[in-house]
Amino acid sequence: MDVQEDQTLAEGYKLKLNSYDLGVDIELADAIQRLRFEHPEVRAVVISSLKPRIFCAGANIYMLGTSSHAFKVNFCKFTNETRCALEDDSRHSGRRYIAALNGTASGGGYELAIACDEIYLVDDGNSAVSLPEVPLLGVLPGTGGLTRLVDKRKVRRDRADVFSTLAEGLKGKRAKDWGLIDDTFPTSKFQEAVDERVAQIVHGRDSNVAQPSPFIPLAEGGKKSGIKLNPLEINSTDDTREYKYVALKFHREKRYADLTVRAPESDLPNSLDEIQSLGDAYWPLRAYRELDDALLYLRVNEPEIGLVCLRTEGSVDDVLAVDQTLAANRDHWLIREIILHMARVLRRLDLTARSFFAIIEPGSCFAGNLLELALASDRGYMLNNPDEKLEIATGELNAGALPMSNGFTRLQSRFLAEPERIDEILNGNAQHESPRTAGKMPARRYDTEAAEEAGLITFAPDDLDWEDEIRMAIEERTSLSPDALTGMEASLRFAGPETMDTKIYGRLTAWQNWIFQRPNAVGPNGALTNYGKPTKARFDYKRT
Amino acid sequence: MDVQEDQTLAEGYKLKLNSYDLGVDIELADAIQRLRFEHPEVRAVVISSLKPRIFCAGANIYMLGTSSHAFKVNFCKFTNETRCALEDDSRHSGRRYIAALNGTASGGGYELAIACDEIYLVDDGNSAVSLPEVPLLGVLPGTGGLTRLVDKRKVRRDRADVFSTLAEGLKGKRAKDWGLIDDTFPTSKFQEAVDERVAQIVHGRDSNVAQPSPFIPLAEGGKKSGIKLNPLEINSTDDTREYKYVALKFHREKRYADLTVRAPESDLPNSLDEIQSLGDAYWPLRAYRELDDALLYLRVNEPEIGLVCLRTEGSVDDVLAVDQTLAANRDHWLIREIILHMARVLRRLDLTARSFFAIIEPGSCFAGNLLELALASDRGYMLNNPDEKLEIATGELNAGALPMSNGFTRLQSRFLAEPERIDEILNGNAQHESPRTAGKMPARRYDTEAAEEAGLITFAPDDLDWEDEIRMAIEERTSLSPDALTGMEASLRFAGPETMDTKIYGRLTAWQNWIFQRPNAVGPNGALTNYGKPTKARFDYKRT
Repeated sequence: MDVQEDQTLAEGYKLKLNSYDLGVDIELADAIQRLRFEHPEVRAVVISSLKPRIFCAGANIYMLGTSSHAFKVNFCKFTNETRCALEDDSRHSGRRYIAALNGTASGGGYELAIACDEIYLVDDGNSAVSLPEVPLLGVLPGTGGLTRLVDKRKVRRDRADVFSTLAEGLKGKRAKDWGLIDDTFPTSKFQEAVDERVAQIVHGRDSNVAQPSPFIPLAEGGKKSGIKLNPLEINSTDDTREYKYVALKFHREKRYADLTVRAPESDLPNSLDEIQSLGDAYWPLRAYRELDDALLYLRVNEPEIGLVCLRTEGSVDDVLAVDQTLAANRDHWLIREIILHMARVLRRLDLTARSFFAIIEPGSCFAGNLLELALASDRGYMLNNPDEKLEIATGELNAGALPMSNGFTRLQSRFLAEPERIDEILNGNAQHESPRTAGKMPARRYDTEAAEEAGLITFAPDDLDWEDEIRMAIEERTSLSPDALTGMEASLRFAGPETMDTKIYGRLTAWQNWIFQRPNAVGPNGALTNYGKPTKARFDYKRT
Repeated sequence: MDVQEDQTLAEGYKLKLNSYDLGVDIELADAIQRLRFEHPEVRAVVISSLKPRIFCAGANIYMLGTSSHAFKVNFCKFTNETRCALEDDSRHSGRRYIAALNGTASGGGYELAIACDEIYLVDDGNSAVSLPEVPLLGVLPGTGGLTRLVDKRKVRRDRADVFSTLAEGLKGKRAKDWGLIDDTFPTSKFQEAVDERVAQIVHGRDSNVAQPSPFIPLAEGGKKSGIKLNPLEINSTDDTREYKYVALKFHREKRYADLTVRAPESDLPNSLDEIQSLGDAYWPLRAYRELDDALLYLRVNEPEIGLVCLRTEGSVDDVLAVDQTLAANRDHWLIREIILHMARVLRRLDLTARSFFAIIEPGSCFAGNLLELALASDRGYMLNNPDEKLEIATGELNAGALPMSNGFTRLQSRFLAEPERIDEILNGNAQHESPRTAGKMPARRYDTEAAEEAGLITFAPDDLDWEDEIRMAIEERTSLSPDALTGMEASLRFAGPETMDTKIYGRLTAWQNWIFQRPNAVGPNGALTNYGKPTKARFDYKRT
């Protein structure tokens, strides 16, 4: 265990990190996720370290120095997603994250700290915050570091420049003056000061901290209201990975996979009590946890699968029914957390460096939340056969509950040129209204011709052409340069506004990936290669 | 000559391109620049081709296939700056750019077309628009192509995906339906249709096109009001490059250069007539044209110069006097063009992949427009010696006339955390008011302590430490990994909002630079390496 959890305060929580590397990141992602579902009453999270210099990037560096380019890139992306998930929790669930730096926080450790809302550093004459990547390793503080420095903490750019080139970092007063930390306390008072800060937050005594929104759960009479997140059940064969609601099927020789999401059962509960007692077995939570796992599995374990065909199976009505339950109860903490989780998983999909085609055939259910799978895809193919019933459908969850990293819905990103079309699609001009409509925004169903007319799909081959066209599209896609596709998809998927999140994944990550290939970092004389060795880096000083 | 210019219409202008490669880009940049100063009466610019398939990226591909990584990156940046300059002209000077595609526009040719305001394609059964970079070359349409597709023309992302992977591109009606072009005309009617469109614009008959702002010059009684841009006069030695107002001095063994901008003479004119008759000898035009040339020279010819020390020489009063003249006459077309040019040159500085330190010593004049040099620098060092008079100063041009690519002023980008400070710095709390103040916004002068207090400089060493500190700062900076610095500076310089321009330079270019190093593009089996050869590309299909 690299992350120790400790609930020592009534509504506070401590995460203690043991070392900073990928292991920590995986456990940290898991700890934050479980915290959200299992401890909704927690209002302050303190992240500190078990060892004096635990917030350092030591393990990380050796890992980066010896790992493949693809692993480095994947690691940084996952780490970024974890930090963004932490910020997502702070933004939407009213929990406040406190980095209590009881030792030097260097590199990835300080990058984790600046993902928190507040940073306190012990003033022991030694402990500092630092980003030594540029001066020591010849790479960037690329898991959000540079972007959060100037865009989140708004550190003045010339100071950020000095700080990011100063291997030993900055301590105490100067770190505070420059905005790198929020405060510093002597060793003897550090724990007390952090505890007092937590107490302020938990008891709502700090008027500078936004009070939790009305939807934030508080422990009612001390009763814990969380649900438990159990490990997923997965059955694997050579060619398949089967979850309850998600299935992966690999066509490795053709370099693509089918990823199928199954609709919920038709007898899902509507009441909050029933949902709470279903816990992590409730479809929208379980299906999206499975989808999340499938995406991560693809990223790490199946690098040659260049294309994922997204498919769905089941009843459009059942998916829409779940959406209506979610939308009607969105103010309840558990439903809110479930929707926020769905949104994060869909953002993980947007950020996955694989091509996605939505394959829409009879028996599928691209409706409501599952329609987002089609909208997140690079293309959508929908069979055009008037003899077979085939519909996709929009619902309330397509109207803003599941935003992309750029802050837009997938419909907004899709219809940048015709924003007025979004309202038409969601609220009017639909073919048939759903008979089960009860919420504020009725579901709208689109058969193939209507879907094509509305711009919700890319191509609508008829049944004579369908198989050939899909086969050729798959063959063509998987024949292209995987690197060019990665860069192309990263550009085309994020039209419209940029946010701090998209700046991290677009600008910062893209530059880091570039540097991760440069001989000055990873060549025999590169700084990353030679870090910690008796040999020294030697640079080709040509600027590019 | 790869670009032919032809002024055939009263207020229209034609640029005919001969082939699409770097030569064209340099001539095109020059042609657009001269057009702005020499032909202010021109209101429509038609870009077409001399040969049937001129808008194709043929020359470009071979150049990219055989050039160094640094050259590719530099070429793409310059090309992007040229396209952004074209859009800057359209946005601010009311000129309308029309791409008249009288043949296939492929790759860089189509990227040039989408930098124009309108695109017309001949419908001859053959001619198409296409971005074949991904399918044919394994690289991106990286000179703005992908970004402009979805962010400027707002092409639906799934259609952009299809288009960007389709080597042969799209023709006529489908190209129009998908928003890739604005219209298509048969060969027999093409010239007539384009001419009619130009006439509509020139005679203000199209209510969809914004009418020129009141500042746009129209020929008065047929009188041409432009000024001529003469070639710059440059004297070079091994270690220096001397212009009239700009000097470069190379310290190659130490990998840095001094770039000095000299203040104007004190007897510069205030009246528009006198300024117009000075023409390109007028200080703000000449000095910034020289600065532009110096930056481009550094980029292309001095790759090992990693750091540029920005210096100024002359009188703060004289610089402020010029700024006041410019600010007072900003509505006149020539002054407007001069200010827009200064802004473009400063943006070129922001985008230059070298470190910049402003070195502020007695005898310098970092005031008004030249203060932007210090604000654009990664750090500013200002001598603190109470015995010597040394001031920097703000003025009206720091308040919005010279925006960065992100749309913010350099003061806004600097003080993201304290936006209220900008007004204090520009309008109040200043030490001494300039005695020459006449405009709306008085100049404000800051001695070293005041400049440090205001946050306008990074460090203020005293005269005992000055030389050592500057020497050590230079040594330290030039010892770091040049690649890590490039990525770091590209991240820290562009805090705050992102625009289409910054998305092109940040997200798209960074991804392209990454791909430009990947074996799948440039390795022995890469697509770029093997294009046009009997050998075929072979990819490593692992996705990253």
